[in-house]
Amino acid sequence: MTPQRITMITLAVADMERSRRFYAALGWDEAAGGNEKITFYKIAGQFFALYSKDELTKDLGLPIHARSTGTITLATNYNSPQDVDHAFADAITAGAIAITRPAKVFWGGYSGNFADPDGHLWEVAHNPFWTLDDSGQIVGDA
Amino acid sequence: MTPQRITMITLAVADMERSRRFYAALGWDEAAGGNEKITFYKIAGQFFALYSKDELTKDLGLPIHARSTGTITLATNYNSPQDVDHAFADAITAGAIAITRPAKVFWGGYSGNFADPDGHLWEVAHNPFWTLDDSGQIVGDA
Repeated sequence: MTPQRITMITLAVADMERSRRFYAALGWDEAAGGNEKITFYKIAGQFFALYSKDELTKDLGLPIHARSTGTITLATNYNSPQDVDHAFADAITAGAIAITRPAKVFWGGYSGNFADPDGHLWEVAHNPFWTLDDSGQIVGDA
Repeated sequence: MTPQRITMITLAVADMERSRRFYAALGWDEAAGGNEKITFYKIAGQFFALYSKDELTKDLGLPIHARSTGTITLATNYNSPQDVDHAFADAITAGAIAITRPAKVFWGGYSGNFADPDGHLWEVAHNPFWTLDDSGQIVGDA
C-alpha cells in the first residue's frame, strides 16, 4: 500500500536561473542544499523543488515533451529501502507503469519511479538524510 | 507576495474511473465532495485531486498536449478574493503568464490561474468552504 502522502513536489525547469528568479520574485525563500541542477523550498511538511528538465530526462530515461504544460514529479518518502521496494511492488500491482526500478541513486538515497494511468510521475524514495514523523511529514527544515 | 505554500495538487486525468481505480488500488481513500469530474483525497494539510482533463482544458482555455508526462496544477488558497487579486497581480509582476484572470468560478469560489516560465500551472483561489490556519494549511478534513 502506498501511504496517502506527498513529500515533495518537483517541477522540471528548462532554465534554472530563470526559474529561481521567478520564484524569488514571488517572494519564496530557497532552502539549503540547492545547486545548478536543483533548488529546494521548504513548505509545511514538504519540500517544493525545481529540477533541471535535462537531468530529469536522463534520470528517468524518458523523453519529456517540450509542449507539456509542465512536467512535475510527486514524491512519497519511506523510512527504509525495503519500504520503497514494497511500495513500488504495490504500485505495479495496482497497474502503475514502471519507469525506473528502485535502486541506489546518485544523491545518496534509494529511489524508484512509476507513472499512473495518465503518465503522472511518482517517485518512491528513501532519503537517509530526512526524518519522517508518524504522519509521513518531513521533520525539520532540511 | 505569493505565500510559500501549496494547498492542493491536482492531476488532470483522461478517464476518471480508470484513475479512481488506480488510486484505490494504491490504498488511497477518497474524501467527500467528489463527482464524475473531480475526486478529492485528503493529505496532511492539503488536498490531492484528480480532475477531468477535458474540464481543465475548458476552464483554462488552454490546450493540454496529449503527450505530456502529466498535467498538474498547484493551488495556493487565500482568505479572501482581495488576497487572490493581490497574489495574482504580484505573480504577473514577477513575470508569470496570465492564463485566466481572477473571477467568480462555477464551484462557488474566486480563482485565477497563471503559468510559471515553464508553463507550470498555478491556481490562486479563495474557497469560502475551506478554513486556513495561520500557516496556510487547510483545517479539517473537507
